Amino acid sequence: MPPEEKRFRFFLLQAFSLPPASKYLVRPMGGPKEKTLMNFPDVAHLLEDVDWELHPGALAPHGDWPVETREEFCLAAASRLPIVREACASGKYNGIILLGGGDPGFMESREIGRRHRIPVTACANAQMHAAAMLGNRFSILDISEVHNMRMRDLVVQYEFSARCASIRNIHFPMPRPSYTGERSIVGEREKAQRGETSDMLETSVREALSAVEDDGAEAIILGCSAAYWLQPFLQKRLESMGWEIPLLEGYRCAIEQAKMLVRLGVDASGLAFPDDHLRRWRRKKTV
Amino acid sequence: MPPEEKRFRFFLLQAFSLPPASKYLVRPMGGPKEKTLMNFPDVAHLLEDVDWELHPGALAPHGDWPVETREEFCLAAASRLPIVREACASGKYNGIILLGGGDPGFMESREIGRRHRIPVTACANAQMHAAAMLGNRFSILDISEVHNMRMRDLVVQYEFSARCASIRNIHFPMPRPSYTGERSIVGEREKAQRGETSDMLETSVREALSAVEDDGAEAIILGCSAAYWLQPFLQKRLESMGWEIPLLEGYRCAIEQAKMLVRLGVDASGLAFPDDHLRRWRRKKTV
Amino acid sequence: MPPEEKRFRFFLLQAFSLPPASKYLVRPMGGPKEKTLMNFPDVAHLLEDVDWELHPGALAPHGDWPVETREEFCLAAASRLPIVREACASGKYNGIILLGGGDPGFMESREIGRRHRIPVTACANAQMHAAAMLGNRFSILDISEVHNMRMRDLVVQYEFSARCASIRNIHFPMPRPSYTGERSIVGEREKAQRGETSDMLETSVREALSAVEDDGAEAIILGCSAAYWLQPFLQKRLESMGWEIPLLEGYRCAIEQAKMLVRLGVDASGLAFPDDHLRRWRRKKTV
Amino acid sequence: MPPEEKRFRFFLLQAFSLPPASKYLVRPMGGPKEKTLMNFPDVAHLLEDVDWELHPGALAPHGDWPVETREEFCLAAASRLPIVREACASGKYNGIILLGGGDPGFMESREIGRRHRIPVTACANAQMHAAAMLGNRFSILDISEVHNMRMRDLVVQYEFSARCASIRNIHFPMPRPSYTGERSIVGEREKAQRGETSDMLETSVREALSAVEDDGAEAIILGCSAAYWLQPFLQKRLESMGWEIPLLEGYRCAIEQAKMLVRLGVDASGLAFPDDHLRRWRRKKTV
Amino acid sequence: MPPEEKRFRFFLLQAFSLPPASKYLVRPMGGPKEKTLMNFPDVAHLLEDVDWELHPGALAPHGDWPVETREEFCLAAASRLPIVREACASGKYNGIILLGGGDPGFMESREIGRRHRIPVTACANAQMHAAAMLGNRFSILDISEVHNMRMRDLVVQYEFSARCASIRNIHFPMPRPSYTGERSIVGEREKAQRGETSDMLETSVREALSAVEDDGAEAIILGCSAAYWLQPFLQKRLESMGWEIPLLEGYRCAIEQAKMLVRLGVDASGLAFPDDHLRRWRRKKTV
Amino acid sequence: MPPEEKRFRFFLLQAFSLPPASKYLVRPMGGPKEKTLMNFPDVAHLLEDVDWELHPGALAPHGDWPVETREEFCLAAASRLPIVREACASGKYNGIILLGGGDPGFMESREIGRRHRIPVTACANAQMHAAAMLGNRFSILDISEVHNMRMRDLVVQYEFSARCASIRNIHFPMPRPSYTGERSIVGEREKAQRGETSDMLETSVREALSAVEDDGAEAIILGCSAAYWLQPFLQKRLESMGWEIPLLEGYRCAIEQAKMLVRLGVDASGLAFPDDHLRRWRRKKTV
Repeated sequence: MPPEEKRFRFFLLQAFSLPPASKYLVRPMGGPKEKTLMNFPDVAHLLEDVDWELHPGALAPHGDWPVETREEFCLAAASRLPIVREACASGKYNGIILLGGGDPGFMESREIGRRHRIPVTACANAQMHAAAMLGNRFSILDISEVHNMRMRDLVVQYEFSARCASIRNIHFPMPRPSYTGERSIVGEREKAQRGETSDMLETSVREALSAVEDDGAEAIILGCSAAYWLQPFLQKRLESMGWEIPLLEGYRCAIEQAKMLVRLGVDASGLAFPDDHLRRWRRKKTV
Repeated sequence: MPPEEKRFRFFLLQAFSLPPASKYLVRPMGGPKEKTLMNFPDVAHLLEDVDWELHPGALAPHGDWPVETREEFCLAAASRLPIVREACASGKYNGIILLGGGDPGFMESREIGRRHRIPVTACANAQMHAAAMLGNRFSILDISEVHNMRMRDLVVQYEFSARCASIRNIHFPMPRPSYTGERSIVGEREKAQRGETSDMLETSVREALSAVEDDGAEAIILGCSAAYWLQPFLQKRLESMGWEIPLLEGYRCAIEQAKMLVRLGVDASGLAFPDDHLRRWRRKKTV
Repeated sequence: MPPEEKRFRFFLLQAFSLPPASKYLVRPMGGPKEKTLMNFPDVAHLLEDVDWELHPGALAPHGDWPVETREEFCLAAASRLPIVREACASGKYNGIILLGGGDPGFMESREIGRRHRIPVTACANAQMHAAAMLGNRFSILDISEVHNMRMRDLVVQYEFSARCASIRNIHFPMPRPSYTGERSIVGEREKAQRGETSDMLETSVREALSAVEDDGAEAIILGCSAAYWLQPFLQKRLESMGWEIPLLEGYRCAIEQAKMLVRLGVDASGLAFPDDHLRRWRRKKTV
Repeated sequence: MPPEEKRFRFFLLQAFSLPPASKYLVRPMGGPKEKTLMNFPDVAHLLEDVDWELHPGALAPHGDWPVETREEFCLAAASRLPIVREACASGKYNGIILLGGGDPGFMESREIGRRHRIPVTACANAQMHAAAMLGNRFSILDISEVHNMRMRDLVVQYEFSARCASIRNIHFPMPRPSYTGERSIVGEREKAQRGETSDMLETSVREALSAVEDDGAEAIILGCSAAYWLQPFLQKRLESMGWEIPLLEGYRCAIEQAKMLVRLGVDASGLAFPDDHLRRWRRKKTV
Repeated sequence: MPPEEKRFRFFLLQAFSLPPASKYLVRPMGGPKEKTLMNFPDVAHLLEDVDWELHPGALAPHGDWPVETREEFCLAAASRLPIVREACASGKYNGIILLGGGDPGFMESREIGRRHRIPVTACANAQMHAAAMLGNRFSILDISEVHNMRMRDLVVQYEFSARCASIRNIHFPMPRPSYTGERSIVGEREKAQRGETSDMLETSVREALSAVEDDGAEAIILGCSAAYWLQPFLQKRLESMGWEIPLLEGYRCAIEQAKMLVRLGVDASGLAFPDDHLRRWRRKKTV
Repeated sequence: MPPEEKRFRFFLLQAFSLPPASKYLVRPMGGPKEKTLMNFPDVAHLLEDVDWELHPGALAPHGDWPVETREEFCLAAASRLPIVREACASGKYNGIILLGGGDPGFMESREIGRRHRIPVTACANAQMHAAAMLGNRFSILDISEVHNMRMRDLVVQYEFSARCASIRNIHFPMPRPSYTGERSIVGEREKAQRGETSDMLETSVREALSAVEDDGAEAIILGCSAAYWLQPFLQKRLESMGWEIPLLEGYRCAIEQAKMLVRLGVDASGLAFPDDHLRRWRRKKTV
């Protein structure tokens, strides 16, 4: 961080919150930050040098189930922007971490952050950047047909198409009224944690192998944050099979990318995210 | 349109509305649809075979000035989706036309439309498709640094990067609190209509020529809908200079693309816009 | 269409004709236009607002079998250009529709049409544009190894490579002296129409599924016009299997694209198709 | 060449011939081959180890002026294919060289050549391959707006877009009824040969410099064969200015590429140019 | 860094060393590490949480002047690899930082580092990754024609071509026998530090503006490490002109990227950098 | 070759030599040039018009086993450059042929050759250029996971990514201390030459078929030069199965490409390989 910054002061913002009584929860909706930040033990050591706050996210405007469609992502994005604005304006933070696998409101939040010279990072974007540092092409392991398309939109918007080997679908959709299957992400995590066989993990192993052997992936990133728990389990499985492929996860990447930006003293290009109060303008842009 | 459809029934939705008392208006906020649809005389003949309704758009949630930043586009998108939902559900329309140059909520609206098998078109997207039918590369003539970046995001998201020769900025920003310049889009249109010299038109001529001579544009499309009035004036000027380059405009392209889709009996790919109630899913996607 | 145009006046031109006595016919070589336009019932409703003429095409110069090799496509292209010239010069038409799956003479015909300000559309090109409106990537379902390469050349020449997921070969070659197999496209169509099992349809189902599941297609277009009859049958089969993928066909796309261009008052970019009597020229082009 | 081939036996085919009485000639239409092969002295040393015949080309079907529009190129292509067929079938040649800058009929001729296992080369294509061996990107120096678009189509069809820095237009159109300017390519060549100032050469110097300094060209190739005479003059000029950029020309590249293919014992891929009498076919192609 | 790592332990390796008596020095060849690490004051705050050693680099095998040609970069690469090997094998470091602007031996060093699970970063590569986090496209500001081509090779090899807007040459070559100009990088830095006008800085301002206005750069990175001193001066100048474009520099980016990788517990993909002692292999790779 | 050159005078340089007593040899380390040039009978006819010398290559600095890792390739590159320098400076040669499948030192050697106006060719690069002349996409058949990544780096560095359909691994690694498998390339060649079944050949057939049927290859090139012996055997096998796909090999391509360049009188672009003693420089490069 620039010489005058002595410590990271990060604002972690959940993608959205659901009513605690919702029957579609995949993470706890209340409690201390160490409990409500999913997979905290995987992340804890990276937060040791950070003063951090965790915001539960705006109440999801679309319903009481997790965001998965493009429409839901748009609504969640809009509802989280005022929180980003307020956090930036508070002067309390030198970095904003957008939690959630599908990065709702990321481009807009960077625009807001830019006005305050505060870097904003998000989980899918940060994973793609980290993956690009490790190999030439990455695959995304993701949970459902609908969510896959969100990840696809992000790959395109972030201009990572040439580095994306594939999006692999393990078909464990988020709970929602329209989903009548019985597959439960929460249940799978618990099974894995108990050392039992988890179909979600087994399917992930199978799809990761296809990503490696058929699609040309040299790194794997995870799509939906509800699947981030897979990281240590799946990494271990792949290693035990002799495949030396790094498996990333969003929280850690987003936190560490924010640190890198803070320390380099940069946030976002003022040309890519031009300010409302513009001093200079260009006649021409190329895409 | 499919044999059973006898007539186009289109829902035209403005990008947003502003309070009538706003001092930042660029179009009338009330009156008959023929008055509030900008540049109606340019479009009228294309609506003759259409039963059409014009919705004024949701009241802009961000303030009383036009949408221009990424943040504002996101908020406008979210606020217009419920209107799209309702229009689709009403059963009254066989096509949805999203007005506005920056296509807020287009991808999300297509997802909604898909559930009802109703095509949704939008002005930037439709212009890009039409331009691609006429030549190999197009340039976008657009009004301001901030709005340019919205257009850029759209080119990338729609995967038209390889066909976009440039985005040319004429620097006539929309009225807004932060803009202290004196350039007025409305005033320029009036000058042009009175046959007086319009700086906005003159600048557009200059930038269009650069697009042709320097950037390799073979067609030109317009960015912000507040600049659509330029089309007949600028087309004429370019022709008088001997440049045979088509100049498109968003309303006409969006209306005609919607007709094409309706008549072909298609709306959007169910694989690109998968339904919430999914019958089949794929293991793999490529980007 | 521009205000002054009151009705579509289209000239439909077959790719070539064969001697009626040829033993390699795949469509009738004489009779009323409704009989000689293949699959007329699928298209009829789109021609209701069109005054149309159907030209049988020039007699194929290469032999009495259908065009399939690159050499044959070139000869067919050259022999159809004088007909396009004459149609354009007649002043009777406001649109030219080039029938045939492999678009012989399309680029050249657009050049001719441009001189008369008449849009020219063709079946492969129009399908690609329509497919691009529906999803990100399309596959081409086509009949033979040799014809596939023609489709490939078109994808490249039209600069749709990045949107083409694959060309899938069902291996039902056109009848020709060198083809000694027994597969008959005409016979297959008749079987399907009688409700019997058609190997051509079954193979198409199989290849379409591979296009969806393996290649990433989000829309499917048909290559050779002799396979256009598949459209309703195959679309139905895919739908019945739960795959919501649009299946396009060339005649309808070419007709509707022509309408769109006529109504928008455009034909082709004068920069992409410069006139012989040039008024302005550019120092530089980019590819 | 393969061990059994002892000498190159090449068939050189002009793109087309014009009536000797035409007032639009740019090369002599009769006489010994050494006289009718343009710029023979530049090429002679490369033909020393070749038994070669020069065919004057089919009489141009479109009129008595040189080929320049897309339509004219198509007609010229079709009229030259029977000559290629006959040359291949004669058994007299082990290489076919298509003369002319715009490669009419090249893809089709390769298909024909493939059946006889005879490589076919053409001037634009061969220059692009040679240029790619020398640097990363090349520019094309070409004579007219219309001809430029032919070159552009070739760059795209040959999939060299990523290596083409620009097409630079010196605006010395071929003589033709519609061209009323007074610039004469033949006159310019004579001036240059007499040591006088040639506007065509001076303009070429200017555009070559722009290709180097602005467009990023690392090699330059020539478009129309009527401009091939520029090669030694322009190369010398660029060298005298300190620019070490190779300037290629079509005849030499096409002849030497043909030798390379003959000696390697290859002609064209049977998968890219599948035979009419096919032994194996593929289910899938990618573009 | 992974929980068990308590502190960064970095090995910083100069690209090469020259004989202290060389008359072509651009940095001191002896003294304490804080003196021999160029521009230490710009970097010092980033090394506060690092235990670091600075290796002077192998003695340049090619001569007593700085590395600038491709040949010299290859020789420097080879001569530095044994040092990387030894550092990795020593067990003393958890990160290797390759100093120098042209990244000699970076791909090879990552291969070596991978065997020891130690991340290796380099200045050009790290700047490109950081720039990609800030905007869509970056330009490289670099010192000489010859060095530019090295930067170009790196952009291609790292697969950043689509994000590289341009390489801008300020033409201040490194001192070497063949360079007879009088421009001195060291002298320019001193002038700038004394507050005098530096031609090198002025030229950098001019080229940076062209990168922004003409080439579409949204971030700027520096090529040769001998120009890294420009960073604070040039950043300030651009800001004072109203251009909000981030200007990066190699040392800081390479250090911070190494920290990010160490903390994420990754080094390089074992598939992109396969081990000599391989446990699994793939039948297929895609590029 | 240019008129004044009367005969090819080529310097063939092995990639490296090993101690004759090494137990990891794949080619003889001494004897007449006809014996030490691998597969001489396949190449002999192409050397009939060449005065050629064969240099055994520098002694490998890394150990007594063949080059396979990136590190080893870098060391081999550096150790061969002085030999290239000397050969160029000798004035005895008009072409340099770099033997070896992975092209160590190719870019650097071209830079050296450029100073002397002598073309330098290399086996992988020459095969890629030749393959591009035959079809649209090629696959590389290669021997091992580690060597595959070298081939991949070359495809990227040479900017042939868009033409590379795949790299197919037959998993017959070079002998080296870390390789404990029993597969022997030399043994396989002998089996094939004796007409016995060779697993290496059988695996190559299988992978070549996958390249054709799954990956879209239209030509095949060979990676490691130790596998070049496969060429006649594999070509024959593919032909016997009905697949008309050209199979190239490096020595022949490199020799014939060098002849082509010599006869065209070119070596490398002075802009792509700028001289140390530069006369002109450019402000800008594009990648």
